[in-house]
Amino acid sequence: MERLRTLDGEAKLITHIGAVLGWDQETYMPPAAIEERGDQLAYLEGLAHEKQTMPEIGELLAALGSTGENPEGDTTLSPMDRAYLRIMRRNYDQATKVPTELVSEMAKATSLSQAAWAKARSGNDFPAFEPHLQKMVDFNRRIADCLDPSGKPYDVLLDRFEEGGTQAGIAAVFNPLRDELVKLMDRIRSRPQVNDDFLHRHCPEADQAKASSYLMKILSYDLERGRLDKTAHPFTTTLGVSDVRITTRYVEDFFPSSVFGTIHESGHALYELGMGPAPEYQRTSLADAASMAVHESQSRLWENMVGRSLGFWKNHLQEFARMLTPVLDGVSIDEYYRAINKVEPSLIRTEADEVTYSLHVILRFELEAELLSGNLAVKDLPGAWNERMQAFLGIVPPDDAKGCLQDIHWSMGAIGYFPSYALGNLYGAQFWDAMKDQGFDPAVAVENDNLGAILTWLRANVHSAGAVYKPGELARKVTGESLDASHFMRYLNEKYARVYGF
Amino acid sequence: MERLRTLDGEAKLITHIGAVLGWDQETYMPPAAIEERGDQLAYLEGLAHEKQTMPEIGELLAALGSTGENPEGDTTLSPMDRAYLRIMRRNYDQATKVPTELVSEMAKATSLSQAAWAKARSGNDFPAFEPHLQKMVDFNRRIADCLDPSGKPYDVLLDRFEEGGTQAGIAAVFNPLRDELVKLMDRIRSRPQVNDDFLHRHCPEADQAKASSYLMKILSYDLERGRLDKTAHPFTTTLGVSDVRITTRYVEDFFPSSVFGTIHESGHALYELGMGPAPEYQRTSLADAASMAVHESQSRLWENMVGRSLGFWKNHLQEFARMLTPVLDGVSIDEYYRAINKVEPSLIRTEADEVTYSLHVILRFELEAELLSGNLAVKDLPGAWNERMQAFLGIVPPDDAKGCLQDIHWSMGAIGYFPSYALGNLYGAQFWDAMKDQGFDPAVAVENDNLGAILTWLRANVHSAGAVYKPGELARKVTGESLDASHFMRYLNEKYARVYGF
Repeated sequence: MERLRTLDGEAKLITHIGAVLGWDQETYMPPAAIEERGDQLAYLEGLAHEKQTMPEIGELLAALGSTGENPEGDTTLSPMDRAYLRIMRRNYDQATKVPTELVSEMAKATSLSQAAWAKARSGNDFPAFEPHLQKMVDFNRRIADCLDPSGKPYDVLLDRFEEGGTQAGIAAVFNPLRDELVKLMDRIRSRPQVNDDFLHRHCPEADQAKASSYLMKILSYDLERGRLDKTAHPFTTTLGVSDVRITTRYVEDFFPSSVFGTIHESGHALYELGMGPAPEYQRTSLADAASMAVHESQSRLWENMVGRSLGFWKNHLQEFARMLTPVLDGVSIDEYYRAINKVEPSLIRTEADEVTYSLHVILRFELEAELLSGNLAVKDLPGAWNERMQAFLGIVPPDDAKGCLQDIHWSMGAIGYFPSYALGNLYGAQFWDAMKDQGFDPAVAVENDNLGAILTWLRANVHSAGAVYKPGELARKVTGESLDASHFMRYLNEKYARVYGF
Repeated sequence: MERLRTLDGEAKLITHIGAVLGWDQETYMPPAAIEERGDQLAYLEGLAHEKQTMPEIGELLAALGSTGENPEGDTTLSPMDRAYLRIMRRNYDQATKVPTELVSEMAKATSLSQAAWAKARSGNDFPAFEPHLQKMVDFNRRIADCLDPSGKPYDVLLDRFEEGGTQAGIAAVFNPLRDELVKLMDRIRSRPQVNDDFLHRHCPEADQAKASSYLMKILSYDLERGRLDKTAHPFTTTLGVSDVRITTRYVEDFFPSSVFGTIHESGHALYELGMGPAPEYQRTSLADAASMAVHESQSRLWENMVGRSLGFWKNHLQEFARMLTPVLDGVSIDEYYRAINKVEPSLIRTEADEVTYSLHVILRFELEAELLSGNLAVKDLPGAWNERMQAFLGIVPPDDAKGCLQDIHWSMGAIGYFPSYALGNLYGAQFWDAMKDQGFDPAVAVENDNLGAILTWLRANVHSAGAVYKPGELARKVTGESLDASHFMRYLNEKYARVYGF
């Protein structure tokens, strides 16, 4: 076990080194260094892959009784050691089961596909992208087949991001969610729209930066172990167990972009900084997120359930108005609360509000599953996309650039990732209700400006567990029930009844 | 040869990755990440060392005819290939001849020694450091013996920093320099001191930062391939062929610290960015500095011969006064020129002016050579230091903290490095005179604000050569004569006759 952790830790260390280079590339690297940086990152990726696929790891796993059928190994081992074997078996199989030739063949095709996608999007030319997307779908089928020839392809791909998740299980959660969201949207549409004009007042970057620092501080994001920088696209990155950094983007005529972006990324960072099931597992794959969806639950819980709540702004709007003077002059707490929670069906997922966001994601989940199964032909994607946009959101993109070409994911061959974006909302709301069930009301904590209590609960129940439990198990362990959408829907219905007054 | 370059290039790439981490550590890394960063850097160092000592390199060198006696290999090879074999043989021998056990034994002792030095310096307690220094001297003797048992130990150690340099050769250059500098100091002392009070006026960091950017621009330091950041101690670091960054320090009551620091580091960066004897040698050890002293020649040429010249400030003082308003209000060009060239014997090397700086260095060169040979016992160092300070500079430190304990080098076991600091001045002045001999007067170029012409000359004659020539050969090739101190002394005598009016 010790030796396994050492080998794993070495791969982790290399990954962290790569994260330093990646962070630098996005923040401060001089432009002309880009090509060489690519070589440096490729070298580190190769090195990490070499470490992750060392035959010795396979031998150690086998010696400890871990197999494909029984990944957790010998029953005499401690539960944590068994969880570790499960994760290591999973990572090892995923890294070794797909032949190197297929990986590099796909890498080449992906690079062409991404270029073709960028061109097709700017030229609004889906047919030019179509053959590339077809290839990406085909590659995904081959990969699924390598990983588990007996599994349902979409389930196999999904499992890489949401361990133990299945298409059927997710559909069972997403279908009622979709119907409820469409109903909620109808109700919202029947009410007068809120006014958020003042959110678009000019707000200098320096003031927004001060606001971001303020937010990080009240969220207890420890700047001894992290930092905030400015990039074109916001992200969180882990450069070490004690070095998790976030970035944000400043839009001078829409300060909420940085405000909620900073809270969102801080949520991710707090999760990363809180991981650690046990000291001996500190720098191992057990100190990883339970899943991408659980990661997203942490960012969105802080961004939306805390950061877009009335209680939060009752405590902080005054200080904000001071920092951002004169942007919020004359804006009441009620006006502000409604503005930051404005709902409006829009064409672009990444700009969507809390209500419509999940609908964008469900649409993609349904379509990518159908593409993979062959129920939907690639050439029919634009039509299917537009139909579902009409059905879910009541709007139709004027062109494919703002339609099925908007996201980069499929062009990168990433199929199975999209559900995470919406599952995160569900995990978050379910954790929130679990706090209440356990006698601690997080909404009251927010009102009392006691955010630390929420973090403490998340640390104890979610963060520290790392990847010990599969995400579905984690939900059951922490909340006492399987993941379902009712918590999230109750939260939305209550909140938006207030925001829109129905 | 191709294969050799590939292996070498891989080691270089790893070194550059380490430089990214090192740069990050000094600039933006959150404090709590320090321990893990140490592990990451140690891992990369180990990896680079592994690459540098691969038996395959030894085999390739042997196959190409390169041996200890005939490092340049087969005479049928091109001069550049032969130079490359010389460098590779040298690096390989230096990396492999010292047994790993000795290296790690010394590393442990060095870490204790450095800690003991820091404590001894703050407590002004040389006896507490004495046994550690003795160990460092002993380790250096052992290392010299491993590298070349038949060579003179100091020569062997020196060669690591100044290829082909010898104690006798350097003494032959330093002795007359020392005597001339002492004479010049006597002349300066006989004149009224210049007034530099206005250099100590409060100057906000932001203004100094603007001035630094301005300087980088007029020096043609391409910000597509580099950048400037703030650190406790200024440095230049190479993160890639197209990524060379500098740092500076802002002292608000002494702006020349950042101004001349930025020019100095820019000089180093321009050298690094200009290397490249041929495209196929771009990312190899042939695209390295000829020596530490030649590196220092580039920084000091720009800092002193250009940056502290009257011609330079005739072109730029007005703009500077504007940027630093009101610090230079009412200061004439003549007052400014004299102030930035004020000479004053001081106790601390790193704060020394152009005249006394080399005396500080010569003192250390003499003492470290005597320590190594045993002509000076470690316990007698403080006395010898103080005696020589009196003889060279006319002042005696009040205590050892400001005397023989001031530099970190010996505590790190670095013996043989100090001469580079003064040799740099000599190379620089000799290159300068070579420009004149070749019909291009750099002083006129400075007056005409044509700094690009100086850079072009240095690129063509010094930078592009990389490590093709040993430093002594480079001097002969570029200037037509062996290194001597007369150029530097003529420069100083002319300049300071003007500054001090004698």
